[in-house]
Amino acid sequence: MSRPKILVTNDDGITSKGITSLIEVAKLFGDVLVVAPDKPQSATGHSITIHHPLRLNEFHGNDLPAYSCSGTPVDCVKLAIYEILNGKPDLLLSGINHGENTSTNVLYSGTMSAAVEGAMENIPSIGFSLANFSADADFTAAKWAAKKIIEKALNKSIPENTCLNVNVPDISVSEIKGFKIVRQAHAFWADRFDKRMDQFGKPYYWLTGEFSNVDQHEDTDLAAMKDGYVSIVPTHFDMTAYSKIDEIKNWML
Amino acid sequence: MSRPKILVTNDDGITSKGITSLIEVAKLFGDVLVVAPDKPQSATGHSITIHHPLRLNEFHGNDLPAYSCSGTPVDCVKLAIYEILNGKPDLLLSGINHGENTSTNVLYSGTMSAAVEGAMENIPSIGFSLANFSADADFTAAKWAAKKIIEKALNKSIPENTCLNVNVPDISVSEIKGFKIVRQAHAFWADRFDKRMDQFGKPYYWLTGEFSNVDQHEDTDLAAMKDGYVSIVPTHFDMTAYSKIDEIKNWML
Repeated sequence: MSRPKILVTNDDGITSKGITSLIEVAKLFGDVLVVAPDKPQSATGHSITIHHPLRLNEFHGNDLPAYSCSGTPVDCVKLAIYEILNGKPDLLLSGINHGENTSTNVLYSGTMSAAVEGAMENIPSIGFSLANFSADADFTAAKWAAKKIIEKALNKSIPENTCLNVNVPDISVSEIKGFKIVRQAHAFWADRFDKRMDQFGKPYYWLTGEFSNVDQHEDTDLAAMKDGYVSIVPTHFDMTAYSKIDEIKNWML
Repeated sequence: MSRPKILVTNDDGITSKGITSLIEVAKLFGDVLVVAPDKPQSATGHSITIHHPLRLNEFHGNDLPAYSCSGTPVDCVKLAIYEILNGKPDLLLSGINHGENTSTNVLYSGTMSAAVEGAMENIPSIGFSLANFSADADFTAAKWAAKKIIEKALNKSIPENTCLNVNVPDISVSEIKGFKIVRQAHAFWADRFDKRMDQFGKPYYWLTGEFSNVDQHEDTDLAAMKDGYVSIVPTHFDMTAYSKIDEIKNWML
């Protein structure tokens, strides 16, 4: 039996510790192709590059086929399928992200958008994130969790047009209580802008803020993470608010 | 009674014909603030700018407060709320997009991502798109539809944490059959890349492709548009695939 073809991407860039960690795990399960951004592309969401062309360069540094791409994580997925593989991989893995992608972060996250793009292509896809933003974070527990989940995903298969949003708390393997299959928490960023003056006295703005959890239920990714579990949210790309269709129909437009 | 405060943004840029058309309609209903990208930001999805700072410049050219922003449509919404208004508008309008945003395009669209960001902030938000990509498209029918929908939205109120994805077919007002409240069609881009060589013989890639409708049901935005209706999809930001939670639980991780 041939080994599965595994596409690995991320949004922190091809040289990050997170993707290096994910490649290590992916190699245990199949033949790995890496197509990842040539620079950090965090928070690029489902952005694609259409106003200027993309570049793709062979990347040397690990003993497997790898390309760095000038575009976003979603660009990487599209280039991998339509230009490099000329077909779909058996599994798409994105991450391991430096920083968690729980709750509404799924919309901003380049890492998760790559996995959602995989789901659109009906490729079994998983996005992994670790709740630690530092470049030198310890990915031991995240690798352990990724190994367990990939094993199951290959045996049980991920449902059609669905991807998994996996978040790992920043604790040791022995402290992790297990895995929880949960929903996206209803929580938001309380944004603010840091306004500064440039050398000409003109203002510029840095986005900042804190994540505020307004959702106190136990069946969410944020609650699972807080309790020391790896959270797994089955994620799709249908954004229709079905329960609101009748209400709008009553507007009698 | 004071007039509603209306924030207008888009992804085609502050000088586009689409936003100018939307501003015309918005002014009928309230006091308008425009915060929109200083250049085209199509297909930037829910991208936000975090790796470099943002610029905001007063924009003169219409007789109302307007700012052009160096960032994405979602950046524009955040800056409007947290830096310019220091509070939420009563209504957020995004568009009118040059080109339709039906089906899975909602994920790639900067226009719709601005509306989704509004929904996250619990601001009644509507994204408008016209099925015509040209810079000089005729927005007469789209303006007619926007007027009707904004009127209802202000009277009936949009459900909590929901925005509307409105698409208008590229036909005349007299040809439009009405409005249909529908779901996002299950359709995808059949992508391909146009590979070209630069002056040094190195390849570069332009994303191209066609939209292929795999969803033949009648209750979708694509079907409504095809039949000559304005499509309205109530849209939210919960991407959880609820129906798949039990299946993943059965993996017994």
